Formats: sequence, structure tokens, C-alpha cells
Amino acid sequence: MLRDVGRLGVLLALCAALAGCRRNAPSIDADLDAYREPAAKIVAATLGGQSALARVAALTEVAGPRPTGSPALVRAIEWARGAFVADGQENVVLEPARVPVWVRGAESAEVVAPAPRKLAVLGLGNSVPTPPEGITADVLVVGSFDDLAAHAAEARGKIVLYNRPFPSGNPGAAYGQTLPYRIAGASRAAAHGAVAALVRSLASASLGAPHTGAMKYDAGPRIPSAALSVEDADLVARLAARGPVRLHLTLQDQTLPDADSFNVLAELRGRERPDEIVVMGAHIDSWDVGQGAQDDGAGCAIVMEALATLRRLGLVPRRTIRAVLFTSEEIGVRGARAYAERHAAELPRHVGAFETDIGAGTPLGIRMVAAPEAVAEARALATLLAPIGATLVDTGFAGADIEPMQAAGVPLFGLYSDPTHYFDIHHSVADTLDKIDPAALGRNVAAMATWAFVVADRPARWAGAPPETKR
Amino acid sequence: MLRDVGRLGVLLALCAALAGCRRNAPSIDADLDAYREPAAKIVAATLGGQSALARVAALTEVAGPRPTGSPALVRAIEWARGAFVADGQENVVLEPARVPVWVRGAESAEVVAPAPRKLAVLGLGNSVPTPPEGITADVLVVGSFDDLAAHAAEARGKIVLYNRPFPSGNPGAAYGQTLPYRIAGASRAAAHGAVAALVRSLASASLGAPHTGAMKYDAGPRIPSAALSVEDADLVARLAARGPVRLHLTLQDQTLPDADSFNVLAELRGRERPDEIVVMGAHIDSWDVGQGAQDDGAGCAIVMEALATLRRLGLVPRRTIRAVLFTSEEIGVRGARAYAERHAAELPRHVGAFETDIGAGTPLGIRMVAAPEAVAEARALATLLAPIGATLVDTGFAGADIEPMQAAGVPLFGLYSDPTHYFDIHHSVADTLDKIDPAALGRNVAAMATWAFVVADRPARWAGAPPETKR
Repeated sequence: MLRDVGRLGVLLALCAALAGCRRNAPSIDADLDAYREPAAKIVAATLGGQSALARVAALTEVAGPRPTGSPALVRAIEWARGAFVADGQENVVLEPARVPVWVRGAESAEVVAPAPRKLAVLGLGNSVPTPPEGITADVLVVGSFDDLAAHAAEARGKIVLYNRPFPSGNPGAAYGQTLPYRIAGASRAAAHGAVAALVRSLASASLGAPHTGAMKYDAGPRIPSAALSVEDADLVARLAARGPVRLHLTLQDQTLPDADSFNVLAELRGRERPDEIVVMGAHIDSWDVGQGAQDDGAGCAIVMEALATLRRLGLVPRRTIRAVLFTSEEIGVRGARAYAERHAAELPRHVGAFETDIGAGTPLGIRMVAAPEAVAEARALATLLAPIGATLVDTGFAGADIEPMQAAGVPLFGLYSDPTHYFDIHHSVADTLDKIDPAALGRNVAAMATWAFVVADRPARWAGAPPETKR
Repeated sequence: MLRDVGRLGVLLALCAALAGCRRNAPSIDADLDAYREPAAKIVAATLGGQSALARVAALTEVAGPRPTGSPALVRAIEWARGAFVADGQENVVLEPARVPVWVRGAESAEVVAPAPRKLAVLGLGNSVPTPPEGITADVLVVGSFDDLAAHAAEARGKIVLYNRPFPSGNPGAAYGQTLPYRIAGASRAAAHGAVAALVRSLASASLGAPHTGAMKYDAGPRIPSAALSVEDADLVARLAARGPVRLHLTLQDQTLPDADSFNVLAELRGRERPDEIVVMGAHIDSWDVGQGAQDDGAGCAIVMEALATLRRLGLVPRRTIRAVLFTSEEIGVRGARAYAERHAAELPRHVGAFETDIGAGTPLGIRMVAAPEAVAEARALATLLAPIGATLVDTGFAGADIEPMQAAGVPLFGLYSDPTHYFDIHHSVADTLDKIDPAALGRNVAAMATWAFVVADRPARWAGAPPETKR
């Protein structure tokens, strides 16, 4: 019964959304006619991607890895502000956000028995530290939460290793399937008396480097948590299949008091309805290993270069396009919340929010969280990007930094770049400039600039997703 | 004139070798007829490679990385002896060799200025340590020895970084072209007053891991030397292109007194001329990072499985096949020297020496150091391996462990496995079991067993390379 009421609600919301869209939407054919030439100009202006690549290079040289609360993130924010000003953007401002500060200290993991050997380890963001002398305990290797439940009686006093392989197939889906082990593995293991939790790195390929990422505790006991490289997770599992394996884990990581940080904003003011906004977002913080070149340095470069390209081409849209480089995406998503709170009164005038946070693979299209009719119309408009092959329009997760705007009815758009190799380098020391193909980066700029311009300029606006819509 | 005399010598040696071969060689057609059935049996018996893979798995679980002088190498040697005995091999013995002991201690490299960041570093084998507090100096980035010479005046007091990319194309050739920078870079830089030397990792692909390897000093001053990851070498070069870059390098590595180690030998005694020998070799030591799964755990498994396969199939050759797992290949090549010295009187009765030390890619064929007629005849015989595609016979480097036998006129044979991905993992933390394709491993066993059997069984024997022959 409750379920039926829920369905009715969804139907009513869908009808309302569809009705709303129909009332405002002009003919998509008119849009296609209007935007074919601007789209072609944008594609021509971004070919090769060298200008965007230079931005990623500068960011990774000036700042490097830039975790929240770090001096490097301060450098990155200052660099981005300076670059927006140099590009001649309007309303370049820093908007404050209080951010969590989690600092990696000395970390190590070793097999103690059957014979000593070092393991490649990275603590997970938010993890509590081990005692200074570390934790020494036997390991319990499990393949899933069900497997853990089946061996719950053996978990007490153990270090639990979740050795769940990253599924083949779509890497984004694979990440979604394995993410719960990184996020919730520690608390789930602690509930059975485990003393620490290790997770096999969430990685689509590996040459020995562990992949970090955030974890979260529930209300239960807090135990230290870290990622092993794919190779070393396999090794520990193989050793454990032969007999007892004793590990020693040391994580001298610390959570410090929250610190001040900033979102970086810049605008291309609209020519007719400047108080209506299209956001183009990426996040300027990164993990503390590698260079954060693709996560999300590339996203920052795409956003900055897209805005610069529109300005350079004189493509001033009807509404304002606002670039937002969010802080604190990797831990806390606090920049996103700060933006949504500070601009709450303005969100009803946000006609769309774009994010790019899936690396610099060649753009395949976009993923939307919006009214069904908006998705259908966007599919028709996507042919504008046929010259670069980025015509896909799908529903699905659009981006963590824009997600808080969904409740206010803002249509969300995630640039969807080919993720085939993204999780080879994601959150690891291998997320570096050399992995970026400038030509693909340039096509991402073209896709972002075109979509943002079209959504900001077309006379009609789309409705957001019905309130009940989940990702 | 001298050159002409040298040419004459080569010609005379060639003629002698050809004459020698012609006198002894039966028709290759007869060999082909005789060995087609054994070759087919061997291929059938090794398909899938699971038995060989289990050997690599056992070695990497029981011993792990096994540098000379380590307890892990002792475990590996004991394991190998036990495995040969379990296989029912004859004359399983350990033969002593004194080996160098270089032990990695704490190592770190950081950019100090323009802004602090950690670099991924591995000290090079034989490197002297830095002072305990490390070395802090500006970096001089060069692309070649010529580049160093052109900037020699700037090298004094600097840390020299050789940032020479691994060439595309044949990875073995690329390794040969970049190896001098790893081996001799420190002494060449020290000659100009440098205080330390860094080398870009010799790697055909990288996800952030540095690749180690041996270096050597000449008679000049000894400065510490280490490898940076490909990504971090690029980063330092990019930073240096913007302005001065100050690095801090700490290597607490030590060279300890030589230690006792052992080559592991096992035989399949010949049925007619047991005092004539064909060696099948690989090296049992490895670097201290990763698992030494392909370098050269796979080689050990190929040799062991090849000998076991011949015995299991009842393929007892005319002459003796002797498996030799050499110690100390990675530093010192002392096992190779110890074997050649201990068996000096017997080397004239060595009718061939095989080595496998290029990973577990699919076998393409062999590389030979032997008389030209031997190479021509081997090309004809190689069609025996057409069913697994391993028909290539080329001249070229055959293996470091068998090289000392060349002077005694022993024909040398190197199993040539597809090197396309070998240098992705070589000497790094990524040299692990998961990178081995068991089917390709099985084909390597088939190639090794077939060649060793044919050379040990065919009535004739081949002549070695003329004494003047270089690799």
C-alpha cells in the first residue's frame, strides 16, 4: 500500500515535470538551428587540447597534490583565482568553506608470519590511526560482506581484509559495486570485533600502487582502515589459503581541527538574464598522492578552458555561466554544501549545473539528473556534438559537488568521459600529467563549453528531477 | 692492417666452425623426423601452464622477493632443492658461491623547493648510502651523456637527473639503450662534481612505481644513486624548466660482507653420453621489491617444469640435461661465474647452455650465440615449435648466467619470450604473480623442454660462437 502511494507520488511528480517542460520548451529543432554554428566554432577552437593541458600542467607544477587543509590547496586556489582573472572573467571570488583536515603520517604494513615481507599500503581518508607501535594480528580474508557474516565468529581480534576484485566491464559500475567495502568495511568489521580493516584497492589495472579514498564510520567502534595494492591483497589471500598469516599495520594518520578553505568562482555574465545561472563545476582539491592530474585537475582545466573559450569566441549566452571550482570534494564534500547553502536563495534561478569529475578520457556525452522530458530533449540536442562523438545522453550520477542542488530542482549534468582507464590511476600515485591525452582533453572542453552555452542560452529551461528520484 | 688480420681470424674461425659442424652434423631432415613426435608430446603435456604457474605461486609465497644474502633466498633455494627431489630428478645438489650483499634501508626523495612534495624513489643496487641526514642539493636535469657533457660546468654540487625516456619500439633494445644511464650514470656525474645521481626508471609503462636495478662505479668518486618513477622524473624535469629545483635524497642502503649462497642443480641423466651436458638455466635470486615472479621466478618454473615434463614423458635424451638455478644474477652474477669455474674441466663437454630470463610472455623462439652454421641448422629445426608459434631463431644476447661459458666454446641459447610488457614490471613492485598468463608460461615450458631435448639428443653437436664474437 505504502509502495503504491509512493508510485503514485512519482507519477504525479513526473506528470507535473513533463507539463512544466512542455509549457516552456520551444522547438528543439529551433535550438539545433541556433546552436550548430556556435558548437562548430567551439569544437574548432578547442582542438588539440594544448591550452587545457597547459592548465593541468601549471596546476600540477604549482600545487601538486592538494588535500583539504594543505598549503598546496591554498596555492592551487590562489593559482586558479589568478588564472580566472588573467582570462578576463567576471566576478572572480573566493567563497569560504570550513573543511575537514585529515593528514597522512607514516604508514606501513608487513606480513610478520609465515615470513616477513613489506606490503604496499595507503591509509583511507578519515581513518583513525593505529597505536604508535602499530597493530599486530592475524588476518581474516573475506570476499564480501556476506562472506564476513558467514565468518563473523572468526573476526574478533583479527585484521579483516576485503579482497573483492574490481569487476570487469563498466569501470564506473565496478567502482560503485566495490566502493561499499572501502567506505563501510571498517565499521562492518568492527561490529564483529575486528581490530583493523584492509581493502583491496579499487583499481581497474595495477602496477603495484595502492589506491586511497575516503571511508566513513558508523556509530560503532572506530578501527584503522587502509588499502592494500591489488597485488598485495592477492598475495595475502594466497598466503592465508596456505595457513595463518600475521600482519603488522601502522597508520600514523591524524584528523586535525577543521580549517578554512574556499570555492573559486568566476563568471561569464549573461547578456539578457544575468541573474539566471548555469554552473560549470569541478573540484580543486585532490588526494595527497600523485598529482591529482585527472582527479580533478583535468576537470578544473576543462571548466576554466571552457569559460575562456566562450569568452574568447564572443559567445556570451542569454544567462550567466558560473565556473565553480569546489573545495573538499574528496573528504567531506564541504565545498559543495557551502555553495548550496550560500546560494540557496539563488538556486531556483539555476537553470542547470554541470560537473566534470571522471578524468580526461574522450568525452562520450553526459549523464543527467533531470525531468524525463529534459532528458529526451537533451538527446535531440546532443547531435550538436556528433563531430566529436560525444552524443550520449543517459541518466545517472552527475557529480558529487552539484548533487546538493538537486533538492532545489536544479537539473544536473555530468560530463561523461570514457572511464576505461580512469580507475587505473584514480586516487593513486599514478594520477599524473603524463596519463592525459591532450586531444581527448580538448574534446572534453568542447563538450563542456557547448553544453553549458546551449543550456545557458536557449530560451526555454528544463525542469530538474522529481524530488523522489534517486541517482 | 690490424683490421684485416682481425677479419682473417674471423674467417678462419668461421671456416673451422663450419667444417666442424659439417663433419658431425647428420641431416637436419633426420632430426626433424626424429623429434616431431617428442615435440608434439611435450607441447600437449604443457598446455595451459597450470603446473608451471603453481611453481611460480609456491616460490613467490614461500620465498617472495629474494635478494642475494637474504633469508628469503635461502628459503627459495631450499624450496627448489625440495621440489627437484619431489620431481624425482637425479643429482640434486647445491653448489656454493660467495655473493655480494646489498641491503636496502630507509629511502626517500623529496622536492624541497619550489614547494615540498614527495617523490617515488628506489635506490640502485651497489649504491653507496647518503649521509644519515641525506643530501640536499639543486638538481641538474639532463637527457643524455652528451647533454651532461654540454652542461658539465653546472654539475658541481648538484644532483644530476638523467631523464631519458624509454624508447618505444622493441623493449629489449630500449632497455639496452637506457641501461648505461642506470649503470654508469653516477660515476659519469661524479666526474663533474655531482653529489648524487638519479635516473628515470627504465620502464615501458608506469603507474607510479620506480624500477630498481644494479649500478656500477668506476675508479672515481662514489656518489649515491637511485631511480625515480617515470612520473616523478617527468615532474622534476617540468619543475626544473620553470626554475631552480632543490631536492633532498636519503638512501640508508648498505653493502655488507659477501655471504654464502648456492646454485641449485638437478639432472636428467643421459642414456648414452651422460657426461655430455645441456644446461637449462634461470636465476633464483631477484630484486627485493615485488615478488620476482617474472624476473626470474617464471624462468625457474620453466626450467623445473621442463625437466619434470621430460622425465614424466620418459623422454630421456642421449646426453644429460642439467637444470641450473643460478644465484646472484641481479647483483654480481656470481652464481654464473661460480658455475663456469667449478665446471671448467667439463665445459668442453657442454653441448649447449639455455637460459630463460626475459619473463613469461608468449615464446617467440630463441636467440643464439653459436657458430653461423649452428644458427642456420637451428632455424630449420625450429619448425618443430610451429604449433606454438615459437619458430624464431635469431642471434643476440642469450643470458647473463650462461655468458661465462661462451669462452669455452659452448653454444648459448636464450629463450626469447615476447617482451612487450616485460619492462612494465621489471625490477619493480609490480613484478607479481598476477601478471603471468599461464597459457603463455606453458608454451615457454614447451619451447624450453623441446629445445633442450633436441640439443641433448641429436647425434651431432653444434659449435659455439667464434671467439671474437660479441653479443
